[in-house]
Amino acid sequence: MKSSPSTVFITGCNRGIGLELVKQFLGSEKGPKHLFATCRKVSDELKELESKNKNLHIIILEVTDYDSFPKVVKQVEEIVGEDGLNLLINNAGMIPADRDLKSVTPEAMRQAFEINCVAPLMLSRALLPLFDKAAAKAGNKTARNAHRAAIVQMSTAVASIAENEFGSYYPYRASKTALNQCMKSMSIDLKDRGILTMAIHPGWVQTDMGGPNAKITTQTCVSEMLKTIDQLDDKDHGAFLRYNNTPIPW
Amino acid sequence: MKSSPSTVFITGCNRGIGLELVKQFLGSEKGPKHLFATCRKVSDELKELESKNKNLHIIILEVTDYDSFPKVVKQVEEIVGEDGLNLLINNAGMIPADRDLKSVTPEAMRQAFEINCVAPLMLSRALLPLFDKAAAKAGNKTARNAHRAAIVQMSTAVASIAENEFGSYYPYRASKTALNQCMKSMSIDLKDRGILTMAIHPGWVQTDMGGPNAKITTQTCVSEMLKTIDQLDDKDHGAFLRYNNTPIPW
Repeated sequence: MKSSPSTVFITGCNRGIGLELVKQFLGSEKGPKHLFATCRKVSDELKELESKNKNLHIIILEVTDYDSFPKVVKQVEEIVGEDGLNLLINNAGMIPADRDLKSVTPEAMRQAFEINCVAPLMLSRALLPLFDKAAAKAGNKTARNAHRAAIVQMSTAVASIAENEFGSYYPYRASKTALNQCMKSMSIDLKDRGILTMAIHPGWVQTDMGGPNAKITTQTCVSEMLKTIDQLDDKDHGAFLRYNNTPIPW
Repeated sequence: MKSSPSTVFITGCNRGIGLELVKQFLGSEKGPKHLFATCRKVSDELKELESKNKNLHIIILEVTDYDSFPKVVKQVEEIVGEDGLNLLINNAGMIPADRDLKSVTPEAMRQAFEINCVAPLMLSRALLPLFDKAAAKAGNKTARNAHRAAIVQMSTAVASIAENEFGSYYPYRASKTALNQCMKSMSIDLKDRGILTMAIHPGWVQTDMGGPNAKITTQTCVSEMLKTIDQLDDKDHGAFLRYNNTPIPW
């Protein structure tokens, strides 16, 4: 991405895809005016990035601590002011260990659903007033894009029911499929507000979560995703896309 | 349905679709040998049916009380013996009041997910040994159908992401879409066990849940659903069908 959206908010930035997103946003030719990177615990790498980049703001956030959201929104609002927020990437997520038909537990189902579906829905809603501000700045223009106002939900191809060929993974699949459905509902509920929303599959990435057999590096995943996010427009509102801008069936 | 599967288990039978399912199974030309009807609280109507039908067994069950499942399975096992279970209809479900983007709460999301997705997944798994018995009785025959061994998940067209045109209904949509995904995974995980599984949309039915503007009566819904269930075969394994046997996109 040559030119970053002006104000960006990303969850789950201490490592993996989230950390790489931060790096590549900061490294773009025209970087963000303000980049908010949340994590539960700050990694040394993220801390170092903050010390070198004045536009990077680390926010300690447990994404399921909904009571803390008003404070976070206020914190962002005080920095961005009337610019509002251009882009949210709900990247924080998890895969429970108890995943197959024999081992899956109600607790694993609940935990995945809370972190992978309820949390991004609630955070997206909490930040809506800031997206409204950013969308309003574009005046009469109604075209949606990630430089105006966009909510990107980090989904997974594994959430596709149509492409489910290997079964299992109940908590991860169910929670991310539910997230896709919430994204779709939100795309309809936000249709007159100039805010784009879509779900993206990052690819099978060599992170702690993806494991060593994964197909692409975190760098490739993120640079491709950022190209895709950069190109998002009206036709992608409510869409489910791969990192390389190809559609995924529901 | 002229001839009912021999052993049938249905949840949420105190009223609405569940109660009507019980009535129509009992009223079929060749009724079930054993029909297990669960509910949290027995309605007078269900109680009366039990007094008149020796093959009807009422089981008090809160579908999210997973600790009670082993006892329920044992209770059923003692009655059906080596016949096992031919058909489970996971009918119990709910729609939270806090459903739109403004009013939806984490608690509404959790409650719907627990009752509409986690509970049917857990109950289906708990009853698998009884389905294995029923499937084994058919010997070498591998063809799947509801008279051999089948798990029917009561879904809803509202769970279709592809057909989501009106947005909102976050808890209900998310939980039932997640249920569809779990059903799909289970269809793959059970592929060598002769057990059919699918999800069905009952139509927009005139029940307490469907409200007065609903399109079809409970009687029509159930008689059409039973025709569809009666005709299920291999091609419907892992499918998402309307009550009248037409497919729904994911």
